[in-house]
Amino acid sequence: MGEMPGMETGFMRKAIELSIENVRSGKGGPFAALVVKDGEIISTGTNLVTTSFDPTAHAEVVAIRQACRELSRFQLSGCEIYTSCEPCPMCLGAIYWARPSKVYFGNTHADAARIGFDDSFIYRQLHGGRARHPHDPVDAGRSAGRVRGVGAENRSCALLSGLAHE
Amino acid sequence: MGEMPGMETGFMRKAIELSIENVRSGKGGPFAALVVKDGEIISTGTNLVTTSFDPTAHAEVVAIRQACRELSRFQLSGCEIYTSCEPCPMCLGAIYWARPSKVYFGNTHADAARIGFDDSFIYRQLHGGRARHPHDPVDAGRSAGRVRGVGAENRSCALLSGLAHE
Repeated sequence: MGEMPGMETGFMRKAIELSIENVRSGKGGPFAALVVKDGEIISTGTNLVTTSFDPTAHAEVVAIRQACRELSRFQLSGCEIYTSCEPCPMCLGAIYWARPSKVYFGNTHADAARIGFDDSFIYRQLHGGRARHPHDPVDAGRSAGRVRGVGAENRSCALLSGLAHE
Repeated sequence: MGEMPGMETGFMRKAIELSIENVRSGKGGPFAALVVKDGEIISTGTNLVTTSFDPTAHAEVVAIRQACRELSRFQLSGCEIYTSCEPCPMCLGAIYWARPSKVYFGNTHADAARIGFDDSFIYRQLHGGRARHPHDPVDAGRSAGRVRGVGAENRSCALLSGLAHE
């Protein structure tokens, strides 16, 4: 896996492992996320949509809710999120409300779409008819410094930092 | 309150009542949502972010999760959502994943911003730097038939229909 400044490779590996385990155990789709604070994992979440009858139970939402319970607060300032895949619009919204310091993601939305988890219809609505992800190359100029992708071992890892509230 | 084709005014009134009660009882912000199926309310949700230490506990998310538990399924096809305020990006994402037939909302995001609940920073990120809501007037042409607003009693009500999956 490629090096990305600030990213702890071990946490991303852990997220990917959990995402695979989630499918093997029949719990849900291949998605997992961790919340890290002061170098320690304080929560993990995996996609539990179908098994928990909860369309909001995406990995990031599950991990965020659990981390907040753990900390007894409703925001995650000072925390980092590692997620195996680029967040969908719902999760991106949840991340903005939770206000972690940084978010690192593994696979991209295009990788997810290729295996049948396609969120472009939501972006199409958000963009008034045009399907465009916030991190699509077309936005690369505007996004410079906000999103950086690195490819390694056939995976891309990216950092979603410079969050709007910072 | 103005008439909107298909909208049951009583359900929107109920959502607004619950939103007010939510503030009075100290549970959270002035937001509430209902899920309706075959003319019956199957769940209600209010904003519980601060009291439940859950940044994802917006009214729509709470109502969707509860309705799915009620129906023991992870999608809300055949259901309608009535929400006291235009959904934020997180809730809009949750709504798309839940796939209700229709969504009616009362106040707009601009109304919410005026009382301190501003989600424009999230839209700014989703639009690559520009703050623009999917239902902003600038999109009116493209959105024709998808979002229609009616003003009445100093409230606007709008229908978010023609959901992308229909």
